[in-house]
Amino acid sequence: MRTVAVDAMGGDHAPAPEVEGAVAAVRERIARVVLVGDEARVKQELARHDAAGLDGLTVRHASEVIRMEDHPAVAAKGKKDSSMRVAFDLAKERAVDAVVSAGNSGAMLACGLFVMRRLPGVERPGIVTTFPTVNGVCALIDMGANVECRPETLAQFAVLGAVYARLLHGKPRPKVGLLSNGEEQIKGTELTRGAYKLLSAAVEKDFEFVGYVEGRDIFSGDVDVVVTDGFTGNV
Amino acid sequence: MRTVAVDAMGGDHAPAPEVEGAVAAVRERIARVVLVGDEARVKQELARHDAAGLDGLTVRHASEVIRMEDHPAVAAKGKKDSSMRVAFDLAKERAVDAVVSAGNSGAMLACGLFVMRRLPGVERPGIVTTFPTVNGVCALIDMGANVECRPETLAQFAVLGAVYARLLHGKPRPKVGLLSNGEEQIKGTELTRGAYKLLSAAVEKDFEFVGYVEGRDIFSGDVDVVVTDGFTGNV
Repeated sequence: MRTVAVDAMGGDHAPAPEVEGAVAAVRERIARVVLVGDEARVKQELARHDAAGLDGLTVRHASEVIRMEDHPAVAAKGKKDSSMRVAFDLAKERAVDAVVSAGNSGAMLACGLFVMRRLPGVERPGIVTTFPTVNGVCALIDMGANVECRPETLAQFAVLGAVYARLLHGKPRPKVGLLSNGEEQIKGTELTRGAYKLLSAAVEKDFEFVGYVEGRDIFSGDVDVVVTDGFTGNV
Repeated sequence: MRTVAVDAMGGDHAPAPEVEGAVAAVRERIARVVLVGDEARVKQELARHDAAGLDGLTVRHASEVIRMEDHPAVAAKGKKDSSMRVAFDLAKERAVDAVVSAGNSGAMLACGLFVMRRLPGVERPGIVTTFPTVNGVCALIDMGANVECRPETLAQFAVLGAVYARLLHGKPRPKVGLLSNGEEQIKGTELTRGAYKLLSAAVEKDFEFVGYVEGRDIFSGDVDVVVTDGFTGNV
């Protein structure tokens, strides 16, 4: 069973829903959980669920909290004992396999960059969201982490999205589409046309590049991954 | 009652649905209609609806057709006797008040530019679509005519969208939002931030600029007009 660090202080109503979710996940044997945050407040919540000594559920104290209004990079660098940053420290030490937070998404990205660093060949992290389709699911990347992208960034998102679809959605060779305003190759912007060229030229891919797709194709079930910049993805 | 020129040859199944719609509009006294296209084929269709001599419905012969696969500007310039271009000629002569076509939208834009020319202060036409909201309707401009925009283009779309909402949706002082990836002024791209500045600085507006809105606001009923570039609008 995997172990997940949960930022107990990140959400708008923290730590109540974070603790409730962690207790449910451990009781249902979905994962082991390390709740990271103000120990006294987290233990108070755990007591409400009769989960003080629950096997597979531990608490790791962190004295600071990154707030929604904090500047992402400043907070991620400065608040070294924040619940979010400590959760990433646990991942870096391989004490946990993943980090979950409902907090400041920019700080989440910054903590990831500062603590975990980047994989070789990946310049920027991207936010993935899974959408329901008529016959399954589709992963959309980037949902808003990178407002301004280069063609190379989109090409890397295609690789990241394909890995995600393979490991998380169980699709051995995902179909990857590039979001555009029409399916013909002449459509799109300078950015999408540059990414189209890179993705068409790539060899030995673990995915199938199907070319341009339109907004409706996110839901059509025809592609497994849709790649776009963070501005369009967020909209 | 207004008179509308209908391009009888533009759609995928032309001229049958065009003629059927025109006959219904005239019979229900919604508008007078001039059907523009191959006279023989249009009259054959009219006969099927027993509408050969229907008052308020006329046929204007045009010998050419602009096809979906035609290059928009080349077709609009070259096919001078096409049903689409002749329909615009009628509007130019003020023989009709509006033009409707289900054909090549790029050619529609090009015919509009070449025949009608532009209003002073309007550099580019934009495509408007009306979306349902929880309590009414919202106009989105641009739905895809201009993939690459300048801040000035978006500011002009705000004016055009507001006029549309006032005249077509009966909203005396429309609320206009600029589509972005978040409501805070620091969000957006260089393009949206430039348009934000222009719209904030404008005085004596016939609309209220409410700043950035997000994708979900198209449906929330909080704004009457949403302005974006043609790439994002199409997606």
